[in-house]
Amino acid sequence: MKPRLEHFSIVLNKPRFPENIGSAARAARNMGISHLILVDPENPDKERMRHLATRMGADIIKSIKIYDELTEAVADFGHVVGTTARTGGVRSSVKSPRSIAPYLAGLSENNRIALVFGPEDRGLTNHEIRLCHTLVRIPTSSFSSLNLSHAVMIVCYELFTTGMPKGLPQIPKLADSKEMECMYDRLKKILIEIDYIKDDNPDYRMMKIRRSFARAHLTSRDAATILGICRQIEWRINNLSKT
Amino acid sequence: MKPRLEHFSIVLNKPRFPENIGSAARAARNMGISHLILVDPENPDKERMRHLATRMGADIIKSIKIYDELTEAVADFGHVVGTTARTGGVRSSVKSPRSIAPYLAGLSENNRIALVFGPEDRGLTNHEIRLCHTLVRIPTSSFSSLNLSHAVMIVCYELFTTGMPKGLPQIPKLADSKEMECMYDRLKKILIEIDYIKDDNPDYRMMKIRRSFARAHLTSRDAATILGICRQIEWRINNLSKT
Repeated sequence: MKPRLEHFSIVLNKPRFPENIGSAARAARNMGISHLILVDPENPDKERMRHLATRMGADIIKSIKIYDELTEAVADFGHVVGTTARTGGVRSSVKSPRSIAPYLAGLSENNRIALVFGPEDRGLTNHEIRLCHTLVRIPTSSFSSLNLSHAVMIVCYELFTTGMPKGLPQIPKLADSKEMECMYDRLKKILIEIDYIKDDNPDYRMMKIRRSFARAHLTSRDAATILGICRQIEWRINNLSKT
Repeated sequence: MKPRLEHFSIVLNKPRFPENIGSAARAARNMGISHLILVDPENPDKERMRHLATRMGADIIKSIKIYDELTEAVADFGHVVGTTARTGGVRSSVKSPRSIAPYLAGLSENNRIALVFGPEDRGLTNHEIRLCHTLVRIPTSSFSSLNLSHAVMIVCYELFTTGMPKGLPQIPKLADSKEMECMYDRLKKILIEIDYIKDDNPDYRMMKIRRSFARAHLTSRDAATILGICRQIEWRINNLSKT
């Protein structure tokens, strides 16, 4: 299921630097999320925000809403997601952004959802965490410390990509045996012709070449290209030997 | 399969701003990737890099390698991944970071892998793309423009999280019917006692309450908590009626 991204809002609780706000706005906008709420920002300098929001996030900065308290900021939301770097205590049931994204996508059909991020230096307090219905922690390597806009980026990216098809399969449709054998025959002929392999036992040397090509996962077009090159070498050699 | 993150290097090709380099270093380090290579950076001011790398990425900045040409920078790598915002032409077989991550994880077992990012304003040229073995495009909403360090963040995050367990299931182990019925019985008794529901047809009103609780997906502990509260109300009422 795809999320209704217009039902999500980013809530930055007590952010310290306007640059991070701008950068978060740009990140969210790239992932289709356009509502940004600030709670008690240390420095609400819109010019500095705009500089990092770039043209991409300019609209978001223009329509920012600012509140004094987190309780007011999330009052109108049906579901409130808190982000945390720590676990344990009131943070005991913490999920990864990927595992919770399908659930949030379902809720977003009929509900407005707030994605709450704490200040750069210390994150959300236990009191603020209590206002959240679910908690999310971005997996990181040990002793980690994510930039605020990077955290916003990951959470928005997981929402944006949830329900998307997995993309092209890793292994494309390969050339079939007939195409491969046709290519190998021509290749062997050429390699004998140029004395790269000897006429008496060509298949031993060819085996190594076959193994390389098998590993390369050639498509029909790849096999046809190599066949074409072999033909052209043949033509050139015949041409030269006539003169 | 989990990737060998120590076999990955971030290659920033002609980056313009040292702040983006620092920010990319911090992002990579948070995801367990510690090698950073710069090709012809516009301004290799390590102090400005360090400022955004924070303590987290300081080691990476210290051990940065700088090359003049992308060809030299990727010379020692078994596999080169290019990132692009555009598709089509030489960029025809482009994959998403999520779909390619398991493949790169497998390759990383025995190979060093370069993750190449173009300059902030224009990305990798067609000539540079030709040096790449695979191409990756981060899915974004239309008319998007990702910050360089955000792009690095997403690609590293996908590598870091590939092969991880999906996390806790969304629906926890729920209270069973016996526990729920025990709780409902006690609740009904209390609600009659306090005249919230009438003795003559209690089950009609209880049905609405049962539906709310069913939707709430209560665990055994939740049911026990509510049961405990009911008992305590009962005790308090009995206690007061005695005096």
